[in-house]
Amino acid sequence: MRLTSEEKEAIEVVDFGLNILEEVGAQIVVYVNTGRVCAKEIVLFPNQTCAEHRHPPFDGTPGKEETFRCRRGSVELWVDGELITLQPGEQFTIPPDTLHWFQAGDDGAVVSEFSTKSRDASDVFSDPRIVR
Amino acid sequence: MRLTSEEKEAIEVVDFGLNILEEVGAQIVVYVNTGRVCAKEIVLFPNQTCAEHRHPPFDGTPGKEETFRCRRGSVELWVDGELITLQPGEQFTIPPDTLHWFQAGDDGAVVSEFSTKSRDASDVFSDPRIVR
Repeated sequence: MRLTSEEKEAIEVVDFGLNILEEVGAQIVVYVNTGRVCAKEIVLFPNQTCAEHRHPPFDGTPGKEETFRCRRGSVELWVDGELITLQPGEQFTIPPDTLHWFQAGDDGAVVSEFSTKSRDASDVFSDPRIVR
Repeated sequence: MRLTSEEKEAIEVVDFGLNILEEVGAQIVVYVNTGRVCAKEIVLFPNQTCAEHRHPPFDGTPGKEETFRCRRGSVELWVDGELITLQPGEQFTIPPDTLHWFQAGDDGAVVSEFSTKSRDASDVFSDPRIVR
């Protein structure tokens, strides 16, 4: 993965306000996020979990649609209570407004996310303690 | 780049009907192409050119918007007559309905494309001999 120096400085370290980053969190590089399209890399530590959330409708759209493509390591993705395990080269598309969470395997994970526009502040988390 | 066996079988070799693939063409893996989002990898041979085209409006949208991110090699991207050179880790977003073409450098190129929905049959090429 090659990043510009601006991108390296802009890596988001997300701990969801829980302060247990190594267990619950994610490290994110946003490549592009226009009004229509977003692409990110999500890097997860071994067994690190991204907390359950959904992307609700906004502005007359059905909400953010995300395709997760595993690039390295492995990831267990739970979508509406169903488990999808992704190995490198495997992917899954999460419909808008659908609860999901995911956890890296023992070797961590690198996951590409291809989606409609990201509006992180609109995300709805199941854990009421979480602030995004 | 890790691909599933289905993806390997579905690699598109595009010669635009010109039958000079090594000079004008592209090799494309489509990861996802939903009604809202598309992601591809485009692999170019050394100095291979993707012919000039634009993505016109359709269905009340302004047309396809594309972000090209260079992953390996290098690519010269011409957008509305302006040259943008991309090295690994660099990217550029092409507005909808804007003429563009691109050519790999001497070592070829791997370019990720993040975009709105692809409708290749709607693309408008400057060379009237081209069939996509």
